[in-house]
Amino acid sequence: MTSTVSPLAVPLPELPPLAGVRLGATAAGIRYQGRTDLVMITVATGSTVAGVFTSNKCPGAPVDWCRAALKGGKARMVVINAGNANVFTGKAGRDACAATAKAAAELAACPPKQVFVASTGVIGEVLPHQKLIAALPALHANLGEDNWEAAARGIMTTDTFPKAATRVANIAGTDVRITGIAKGSGMIAPDMATMLCFVFTDAAIPADALQAMLSKGVDSSFNCTTVDSDTSTSDTVLLFATGQTKHPRIPSADNAVARGRMLADFSQKLNDLLLDLALQVTRDGEGAQKLVCINVTGARSGPSAKRIAMTVANSPLVKTAIAGEDANWGRIVMAVGKAGEPADRDKLSIGVGGVWMAKDGGVVPGYDEAPVTAHMKGKEVSIAIDVGLGRGKATVWTCDLTHGYIDINGSYRS
Amino acid sequence: MTSTVSPLAVPLPELPPLAGVRLGATAAGIRYQGRTDLVMITVATGSTVAGVFTSNKCPGAPVDWCRAALKGGKARMVVINAGNANVFTGKAGRDACAATAKAAAELAACPPKQVFVASTGVIGEVLPHQKLIAALPALHANLGEDNWEAAARGIMTTDTFPKAATRVANIAGTDVRITGIAKGSGMIAPDMATMLCFVFTDAAIPADALQAMLSKGVDSSFNCTTVDSDTSTSDTVLLFATGQTKHPRIPSADNAVARGRMLADFSQKLNDLLLDLALQVTRDGEGAQKLVCINVTGARSGPSAKRIAMTVANSPLVKTAIAGEDANWGRIVMAVGKAGEPADRDKLSIGVGGVWMAKDGGVVPGYDEAPVTAHMKGKEVSIAIDVGLGRGKATVWTCDLTHGYIDINGSYRS
Repeated sequence: MTSTVSPLAVPLPELPPLAGVRLGATAAGIRYQGRTDLVMITVATGSTVAGVFTSNKCPGAPVDWCRAALKGGKARMVVINAGNANVFTGKAGRDACAATAKAAAELAACPPKQVFVASTGVIGEVLPHQKLIAALPALHANLGEDNWEAAARGIMTTDTFPKAATRVANIAGTDVRITGIAKGSGMIAPDMATMLCFVFTDAAIPADALQAMLSKGVDSSFNCTTVDSDTSTSDTVLLFATGQTKHPRIPSADNAVARGRMLADFSQKLNDLLLDLALQVTRDGEGAQKLVCINVTGARSGPSAKRIAMTVANSPLVKTAIAGEDANWGRIVMAVGKAGEPADRDKLSIGVGGVWMAKDGGVVPGYDEAPVTAHMKGKEVSIAIDVGLGRGKATVWTCDLTHGYIDINGSYRS
Repeated sequence: MTSTVSPLAVPLPELPPLAGVRLGATAAGIRYQGRTDLVMITVATGSTVAGVFTSNKCPGAPVDWCRAALKGGKARMVVINAGNANVFTGKAGRDACAATAKAAAELAACPPKQVFVASTGVIGEVLPHQKLIAALPALHANLGEDNWEAAARGIMTTDTFPKAATRVANIAGTDVRITGIAKGSGMIAPDMATMLCFVFTDAAIPADALQAMLSKGVDSSFNCTTVDSDTSTSDTVLLFATGQTKHPRIPSADNAVARGRMLADFSQKLNDLLLDLALQVTRDGEGAQKLVCINVTGARSGPSAKRIAMTVANSPLVKTAIAGEDANWGRIVMAVGKAGEPADRDKLSIGVGGVWMAKDGGVVPGYDEAPVTAHMKGKEVSIAIDVGLGRGKATVWTCDLTHGYIDINGSYRS
């Protein structure tokens, strides 16, 4: 287990208060010693909420709880613990979620179904929710609007740096803020980390509009990143809107055009923030030394382009070549060919760092490897793939595969 | 690049002559210095042939050549070089195959379409086929029936041990022999190795029967193994039948029942031999320290079981846990859940080394980790997954993911 910060880390941005959001973190002793591991975030009465969860068929108990709670569209609080994922814990896991939500709801004087819970850490061990519940009252009494960094740090497991982003968006002439925190990097930790992300805005946005924007935004941010192809059982992104900043009312879903126009800037800023957080998570990929952007064009369709890009991003041979600073386009050709998507060897082009290396079924005549080699030595590597068949395109991000990944994930749990 | 032999290596079996097959190997200086890199194997006039090739959409030129040649169903020779895969080499690659086949065909006095070619090694570099063609006459003049080991060694790239297997099968009271050699281990070499396998029998079997048996056998052997999920552009399995041992004639395809009965033992022995070779390849997986068998039962269907098993076999987190001798069933649960196949967390059971660890959505009460930990320390690890939904089952094999894999594939090509 490494304690050094990722070479790809970015500094925490300044995170001003966001109207209607109060946060706190404490050390509940769930697994880690001498660090915070329990975070509470409350949102103003009447806040709406949207959520996107793991597609893993063996989700954790907190994911089940959140999916059910989300049906109400209203939220007052989210409680997050690190150190224990509460996954594959059967009835004890479900009971832990219900008991936590009940205890937290009493503090906020709201129904338990307005309390969202999330857990990250080891799998298959029963969550010691008594410890968690015992810590809630003092945590609730000490919430503040300036505790964003404490919250971002409190949800970390083997993350090497805290992850947050903030944006200002404009809704019909009124500025609103969007701030989010995230942890993890796919399934990167010694025992199964999880990707958790919590985003807040002071805008007043109906839950259905929030959900539509979040689902779309996650699709082109978190769902376009991969560290190791292993989909966590706990992935959760929640977006809360407190409605504390007054702006013209968002039109109903019936008036889709007016709604779309009013939320256009918000939606764009939200997407930008989600991608920022997703890339911070990728930058903290276990063992990562390089951030890799894979840009596919000319595929038969958009989904086809994305599957090709993801196949390249998940290829161990491509990822180890990047770690070795080797512009090994032959491995990229192989990965495109194994994706199972329409591809034609003789129409395929491969480029790295802006230089086309392979075209028309062979190496580009007179191809000069020097600028490509220089590009490969940097911290950010860009790969371009033109399939040459159509207009489908996609961009995904990943990191390289290094000894660090083996060190961290090949070490025994205890 | 490691030069130590895999800890999972098995000794080369004794390989008696096989009627109708003559072999030879020589050093043509294609890439490697001071070792053999060119192999020729001739089969008796009238030999039938079957083949199975990579599903990669960017296949190498030799794969295209073999696919076309296979339509004739007849073979006289196969020429294999190591050190250059002749992949993504455009027209020069196609010309190299045609010129090689033509030169070899003159030596054997047969049509070029009865010459099969295969190449393994670096991608994207034009095959120096003049060197290869110049070496053919002397190679042809020195073929012998006792050169199985030389042939098995001549096709190696970064393999750490030569791979061969032999069986005796009975066709209607007559013993026939089946012998095969193989190289590679998925896409394991510094630049893209390939999996090549050549199997020979002295039986007289029509090409269509040979093809049906080979396709079926490959499906439950090579297609059930994975080292790193990266499908080579050159994978090739060829099966030749020389017909030199006299036995009752194989019935035509119209008489499927009689044909099936007469070939039952042969088919079984062929499957057994193919699995033997496939496991030898897996045992030589780059960096492999442990051979892993994953047995899935209770899936909704056979294909569903296989997709679940392959998802577990390709999960970097499962493979690194095995390298770390950690019976981390949580990661297995995760991998089952991400497979995209029907699965129900609360019906799933996970076992290692014959001990069920997780059942009914949680850890088995009173589960004793000691025997499992002891099993994990061995060279062969068995994982059992019961999905609890149906009768579909599948078994696949893989190896662990270690620092050795990163060492070999993260080093620069040159």
